[in-house]
Amino acid sequence: MKRLLFAASLLLFATAASAQQALGPGTGIVSPEIHPDNTVTFRYQNPKAKVVQITGDFLPAQPVEVEVDGQKIQFTAPGVEDLKEGADGVWEFTSAPLTGELYSYSFIVDGKKVMDPSNVHQNRDVATWTNIFTLSARPGDPGWYYEVHDVPHGTVSHVWYDCPTLGKQRRMTVYTPAGYETGNQHYPVLYLLHGSGGDEDAWADLGRTAQIMDNLVAEGKARPMIVVMPNGVWFNQAAPGAAVNNFQPTMANSRSQSTVEIEDSFPDLMTFVEKHYRVSKGYSNTAVAGLSMGGRQSCMLSLRYPDTFGYVGLFSGVGGIEGNEERFATVFAYQPKLYFIACGKDDGVMVGSRRLKDWCDFQGFPVQFYESEGGHTWRNWRTYLTRFAQQLFKQQPRAPRPVRFSGMSDIEE
Amino acid sequence: MKRLLFAASLLLFATAASAQQALGPGTGIVSPEIHPDNTVTFRYQNPKAKVVQITGDFLPAQPVEVEVDGQKIQFTAPGVEDLKEGADGVWEFTSAPLTGELYSYSFIVDGKKVMDPSNVHQNRDVATWTNIFTLSARPGDPGWYYEVHDVPHGTVSHVWYDCPTLGKQRRMTVYTPAGYETGNQHYPVLYLLHGSGGDEDAWADLGRTAQIMDNLVAEGKARPMIVVMPNGVWFNQAAPGAAVNNFQPTMANSRSQSTVEIEDSFPDLMTFVEKHYRVSKGYSNTAVAGLSMGGRQSCMLSLRYPDTFGYVGLFSGVGGIEGNEERFATVFAYQPKLYFIACGKDDGVMVGSRRLKDWCDFQGFPVQFYESEGGHTWRNWRTYLTRFAQQLFKQQPRAPRPVRFSGMSDIEE
Repeated sequence: MKRLLFAASLLLFATAASAQQALGPGTGIVSPEIHPDNTVTFRYQNPKAKVVQITGDFLPAQPVEVEVDGQKIQFTAPGVEDLKEGADGVWEFTSAPLTGELYSYSFIVDGKKVMDPSNVHQNRDVATWTNIFTLSARPGDPGWYYEVHDVPHGTVSHVWYDCPTLGKQRRMTVYTPAGYETGNQHYPVLYLLHGSGGDEDAWADLGRTAQIMDNLVAEGKARPMIVVMPNGVWFNQAAPGAAVNNFQPTMANSRSQSTVEIEDSFPDLMTFVEKHYRVSKGYSNTAVAGLSMGGRQSCMLSLRYPDTFGYVGLFSGVGGIEGNEERFATVFAYQPKLYFIACGKDDGVMVGSRRLKDWCDFQGFPVQFYESEGGHTWRNWRTYLTRFAQQLFKQQPRAPRPVRFSGMSDIEE
Repeated sequence: MKRLLFAASLLLFATAASAQQALGPGTGIVSPEIHPDNTVTFRYQNPKAKVVQITGDFLPAQPVEVEVDGQKIQFTAPGVEDLKEGADGVWEFTSAPLTGELYSYSFIVDGKKVMDPSNVHQNRDVATWTNIFTLSARPGDPGWYYEVHDVPHGTVSHVWYDCPTLGKQRRMTVYTPAGYETGNQHYPVLYLLHGSGGDEDAWADLGRTAQIMDNLVAEGKARPMIVVMPNGVWFNQAAPGAAVNNFQPTMANSRSQSTVEIEDSFPDLMTFVEKHYRVSKGYSNTAVAGLSMGGRQSCMLSLRYPDTFGYVGLFSGVGGIEGNEERFATVFAYQPKLYFIACGKDDGVMVGSRRLKDWCDFQGFPVQFYESEGGHTWRNWRTYLTRFAQQLFKQQPRAPRPVRFSGMSDIEE
C-alpha cells in the first residue's frame, strides 16, 4: 500500500508539473542576478537567436525626435544594450552598478520583445507587460520603499461602488492602513488618480502604493491614511479582466474632451467611501493627487470643489489657467496646506507645470514645486507619491482668506 | 497661448507613449479573435521567425510517458499546432469551434515560449505566465461563470494576519459578497486552499473565484458567503511581489513532509477571520476545500477538527486512509452535509481519490464523488468550485451519530 501511495504522490507531482506546463523546474537560469556591488546580470537561453538585446529604464535614455503637425517634439526612450552569447546558448548582459530603485526591462530577441521567463515578477502598464525587479541598495533608497519589509501591512481591496452619475458600477482599489481591521480609529483619505489608459490597479501595482505607505508609516514618516484609487477612465468600469468585456486597453480616447465626467461623478465615490469606511471627514483630512491625466483631474477637482481638498498633488499633469483664474483664487483663499506640483525635467508636461507654478508665484498663491530628473515615468510618480504622502494630514486647517487674483497678462508668453 | 497648450497636450501623449514603451497604438494585430461560430484566430507578427507554434488547453491533449524510479507514468500535456505565415510576417492559426471556457495559451517561436503581445490578459500559475481568454459561448457554460457580468460584485481584499504558530505575518485573499460593505448581515465562510507552489492569489486569479461567486449568487444558485484564500505554503508569507524577499516560486518543497503546519496554524487564521469579519460561526456555516496539495490539506483539516467543517471539498487531492481510519469515522459521526471528492479521469490523483471514495462507501460514510474528464488542471478546479459552491450552507446541521468504522483489509489492493 505504501508503495502505491508513494507512486500516487509522484504522479501528483508529475501530472501537475506537466499539465501546468512544467511549473516545477523553472528555466534553470538565474535572471536577474543582483550582485553585491549592485550590478545586475540578465540571462536568457536561446541557442537559435541571432541577436538578443535588453531594454530597460536602468539604461541611459536615448533622445528621440518626432514631428507632429510640423512641430518637432523631443523626448527620450529607454536605452538598448546587446547581450553576449555564452555556453549552451545562454545570452548575458551585466549592468553598471545601479542605485536602489524599481526597474523595468524586456528582452528583444531578433527584433521582437520577449519576457524574461526566469523572472516571475512582471507589471502591466495600460496594455504593455514588462519584467520588473527592485534593488534595495541602501535603506532609504527609493527602491527600499517599494520593497516589502517586515513591518505591519495594510490591506489592499478591490471594491465596486455605484456611480449613478455615469450610470454604472465602477471598481476602485482601496488601501487601508495596518490595524484598520482590528481597530476602530478613523483615518484621513487620499484620493489617488491614474493616467490615460490606466485603471484602478495602476497605483497599487506600478505605483507600489501599499509598500510605500506601509514603509513610510512604519518609519513614522507618514500618518496612517486610507488611499482610494478609483478607475478614472470615464467610459470604463474596471481594469481588464475585472470588467464586463474583455477589452484591450489603450491610451487613446481615455481622456474625455473635458474633465467634467470625473468632476460630476466624484461625489458618488466620496459618498461611498465616507459612508463605508472609518473616514475622518473634512478639508484638513482629505487629499487628492494624480499622475498625468490624473494630475489634470486632481487640479480640476480642486477647482470644482475648493473647500473639499486641503491637500492637492499634481504629478506630471496640470489643469489650464485660462478661464480658471477666479477658481484658482478661490482654491487658495481656503489656504490649502499643500498644493504640490511635480514634474520631470525631460517631461513635455514641464511647460504647463512650470507655467502654473510661475503664475501661482506671481499671484502669491503658495505652491510647492518639485522638479525631478527624468520624464513622464512611473519611476518619477512613485517618488512624487513618496514625497507627497509624507506631508499629508500633518497641519491644522487655517481660516479661509479673502479671494483675490491678478490678470494673466503679466506672465503671458 | 492655445497653440502652446495644444502642443503641450500632444507632448503629454507622445512622451507618455514613448516612455511607457508604445502603450498607445498596441501591436495593430487582433489576437485572439473570437468568431461568431466560436472558432478563435490567433495572430503573431514576426517576419524573421522560421516556425511559430501555439500550445494551449483548447488543443487536444497529447499523451506523455515518463519513467520515475523504474515505474512508467503516463500523463497528458497540452497539444501544439503550427501557425501559418501570411502577409507582413503575420502568422495565424484558427481553432476548431470551442465550448465556453477560460482557455490558456502561449506561442512558441523557433522553440522558445513567447507571450501574445496583442493580448493584455495573462495569468500566473506558480512561476509560469500564460495568455488567457474567456469564451462565453452560451449562458451557463463554464466560461460564462468566469466572465464578469453586469451583476452585483463582491470585494476582493488582500489582508495580512498574524500567525504566531508559524512565527510570521501571512497574507490571505478574502472575497466578501456584494453588499458586505453596505450591510450588517453575517455570512458563512468557505476556506479555499491552493496547490503546491501556489499562493493566496491563485484561487482569485486562476480560479476566478470572485466571478464564479458573483455570478452564482446573482442567479440564486449559491448563498452569499465569505471566501478566505490563505497562503498555504508553510514557509512562505505571501505571493511573489507581496512577500519580503523577491523569491521565484517553485512547486518543489512547497509541500511539507506532513500537513502539520497547516493543521497547527489554522486556528490562527480562523481566529482572525471570525474576529474581524461578520461571520456566521459554527459547523453548519464553515466549509473547507482545496485543490491538489490544498485538497490533501482540507482532508487533514477535516480529520484534525472533525467538529469544525460541515462541508469539505477535496479537488484532485486527498489524505491517506491508513492510520486515519478512526479519525475518518469521527468526521462522519458528525454527519457532514457534504464530503465532496472530485478528480479528473486522466489525473494521477484519481487512484487515491477513488480509493478513498470506495473505502467511504464500504464504511457507509456518505461522500459525493464527481469524476470529470481531463487531468490535474485549473480548468477542472474551476468547475469543481462551481459545483461545490452551489451546495454550500443550504442544509440544516444534524446531530452527530455514534463513531464506527470497519477494518481496511476488505478493500486492500
